Amino acid sequence: MTYCLSINVERGLVFCSDSRTNAGMDSIGTYSKMHTFAWGGERVFVLLSAGNLATTQAVVKKMYRDVEQALVPNLITATSMSEAADYIGMISTQLQRQQASRDTANTNFEATFIFGGQMGDSPPETFMIYPQGNYIHESGEHPFLQIGETKYGKPILDRIIKRDIDLERAARCALVSMNSTIRSNVTVGPPVELLIYERDSLTEGRRLFLTEDDPFAKLISEKWNESLILALENLPKFPWEDAEAETSEFKLALLRQKHDL
Amino acid sequence: MTYCLSINVERGLVFCSDSRTNAGMDSIGTYSKMHTFAWGGERVFVLLSAGNLATTQAVVKKMYRDVEQALVPNLITATSMSEAADYIGMISTQLQRQQASRDTANTNFEATFIFGGQMGDSPPETFMIYPQGNYIHESGEHPFLQIGETKYGKPILDRIIKRDIDLERAARCALVSMNSTIRSNVTVGPPVELLIYERDSLTEGRRLFLTEDDPFAKLISEKWNESLILALENLPKFPWEDAEAETSEFKLALLRQKHDL
Repeated sequence: MTYCLSINVERGLVFCSDSRTNAGMDSIGTYSKMHTFAWGGERVFVLLSAGNLATTQAVVKKMYRDVEQALVPNLITATSMSEAADYIGMISTQLQRQQASRDTANTNFEATFIFGGQMGDSPPETFMIYPQGNYIHESGEHPFLQIGETKYGKPILDRIIKRDIDLERAARCALVSMNSTIRSNVTVGPPVELLIYERDSLTEGRRLFLTEDDPFAKLISEKWNESLILALENLPKFPWEDAEAETSEFKLALLRQKHDL
Repeated sequence: MTYCLSINVERGLVFCSDSRTNAGMDSIGTYSKMHTFAWGGERVFVLLSAGNLATTQAVVKKMYRDVEQALVPNLITATSMSEAADYIGMISTQLQRQQASRDTANTNFEATFIFGGQMGDSPPETFMIYPQGNYIHESGEHPFLQIGETKYGKPILDRIIKRDIDLERAARCALVSMNSTIRSNVTVGPPVELLIYERDSLTEGRRLFLTEDDPFAKLISEKWNESLILALENLPKFPWEDAEAETSEFKLALLRQKHDL
């Protein structure tokens, strides 16, 4: 499986992806699921992929080639983010059909994408592109999208991510969401890739490649663990725990009285 | 759907369940999924249920009736926790088959259970009973079991729950795991039931029924939310954030120097 997510906040975009691919439990590999397409100062796109690896690689390859060979439509000719999303949906379904036409084993060729970026003066946008080629964007209330193993890492996003959160905070939240998923599910694994895009910068943004041994990733994970233990420690006690504490204090007070202490 | 979990630590057992049942989006109900069977001083059992409501209700009814009518085997004649689990697995598969034999619509009659408790001097045990009637117990490394919508609430259990954690702390962790699931998935909903069984007490234990408006449940939820926001705040900054902070301090120092401040 896979876990990828994007966050779209006022100050920019965050993308995060794991790198584990598997075709059965005895065929586990490491592939980047984050692809950037940037024309500095003009347009920047990021694509995160989940699903059949042959399909997602073919889609990415075609996206690059269509630009190189000036085949229309492509990422350069798209006049809006949603037109670009539409183009990717079209390629994806075409390539799935092409692979299915040669299939001998009833294989699942489906692929799901998160696609985001910014074009010129338009605001940054993010989309989730379904295997069927159609797509949705995130909502104002929950400005994030997830693909793959989405459930483990959703609660923390639900609690923290709002439009007005700052960009680095959103990126840390993405790392925590990824970290929780990796801990709880063996089909999602490092290295973790993180891309932070500042609104209106129209650059490729900051990209981090965090291996399992990366000191910063380890620090985040350890610190988060410690904080959660502390958070649990600070939760309100059950009524009887206070009562029990009070009772023992009361008994102690009685003993003190009795023995004139 | 459903979310139920059990925790088996040195000092006792914790059981927690939601109460939402649904048969399609337009048929949502509230049913307790926690059932206790207690013979004080002798044996105490708790059953949590997920799956087809008709099956789970029929299983619980039969468990009570077999004792009343002294039909052997039953919860009283079982000589070990695993014998009792086996008995429940047997009833469950029998009732599923019975219902399936009358089925006209290819219905899913499956049910999954968490079953735990203590008998006399034996240590407390917990089991997850599959729809197929077989069962597993929890592991020493991760001494908890989950049924239903298990993914949202798993990361916090993975991080916190160890055998030597104290009972009330384990119970608070169960509430947090439940709370995260309820927030992220509409098919899991309050009231939440929580049962805390102290090892060797051989009583029904403490049982809490937490509605949506319950002040204690609300307090736990709010406090947890606050703590998570704080935990995120306390995560290590990205390298460039420190650098940016240093840069602005450096600029400030230069300005101070320039203006002789």
